[in-house]
Amino acid sequence: MLTAIHTAVGELVGERADKITFPMIAERAGVNPTTLYRRWKDVNALMEEVAAAALTRDGDPVPDTGSLEQDLTQWADIIARDITRPMRVRYLRAMVAARIDIVVGCSVTEARLEQAVLMVDRARERGETTPTAAQILDHVIAPLYHHVVFALPVDPGYARRLVRDVLTMAR
Amino acid sequence: MLTAIHTAVGELVGERADKITFPMIAERAGVNPTTLYRRWKDVNALMEEVAAAALTRDGDPVPDTGSLEQDLTQWADIIARDITRPMRVRYLRAMVAARIDIVVGCSVTEARLEQAVLMVDRARERGETTPTAAQILDHVIAPLYHHVVFALPVDPGYARRLVRDVLTMAR
Repeated sequence: MLTAIHTAVGELVGERADKITFPMIAERAGVNPTTLYRRWKDVNALMEEVAAAALTRDGDPVPDTGSLEQDLTQWADIIARDITRPMRVRYLRAMVAARIDIVVGCSVTEARLEQAVLMVDRARERGETTPTAAQILDHVIAPLYHHVVFALPVDPGYARRLVRDVLTMAR
Repeated sequence: MLTAIHTAVGELVGERADKITFPMIAERAGVNPTTLYRRWKDVNALMEEVAAAALTRDGDPVPDTGSLEQDLTQWADIIARDITRPMRVRYLRAMVAARIDIVVGCSVTEARLEQAVLMVDRARERGETTPTAAQILDHVIAPLYHHVVFALPVDPGYARRLVRDVLTMAR
């Protein structure tokens, strides 16, 4: 049933539905609206869950090339290609629209932070000097997401330039 | 009349109107809807114009303290305080919602870039090594805007940390 609900939300986002409501989702998913009202505080909470699931698929492999520069470059390239796909852009816009109050734990940010920590830890074990994982989020992930949601062009070299920049913060 | 139209849009954004339409704006501004249809391609174009005007007031003074670090710190602090105000957050969200197609010239980005160029040029004339103005946009402005639109907390030290980070790119 959860899958049917997530799929219904995905379809409605894909169709650029103007204002997505619980009754619309329930009808599409073939479930009773009460189910939705009981499980999620509001449509925004459900939207956030679906978008986060789409944006951070579990088991995304984190590059492990033996060099932080290579790892980050591959990782940032994959993310840049992924989040500029039209359906992903719509999810990101839906997340922006859904977030009215300050978010305490953002599951997308947390998933990316975990991946960055993994790459940084491996690099430190190899004796490389590195920026912090938080700096990688601020200076690679944030500008990429910023460009996508504000519809600014993301040229193929942009992610690489951001990686090169963040590596100058290595200490 | 333009002022009345901008004010009407501002009020509707302030009231968190669900879907803003030309007839709603026209009624509020006391103008004929035809005027709006003739002047703007669609509501998004008008929204973009109003948001950009609110987010980059002409004549914002650019700090000139004699040190790039101080200039950038003051500038970033002012921007961080400004864009986290509830009304500004709503404009930023409205801009995200309004931008469906890739934007060629973003007036907000251009205004910030101009300010960054001014500070960088002054610093270079003083003989300081500096990051580029584009790096300042990517690594100070983009993460701040990213945090605001995704409703992530912006603590008072965040803008300063971003400035400290971008200064390590100085060459």
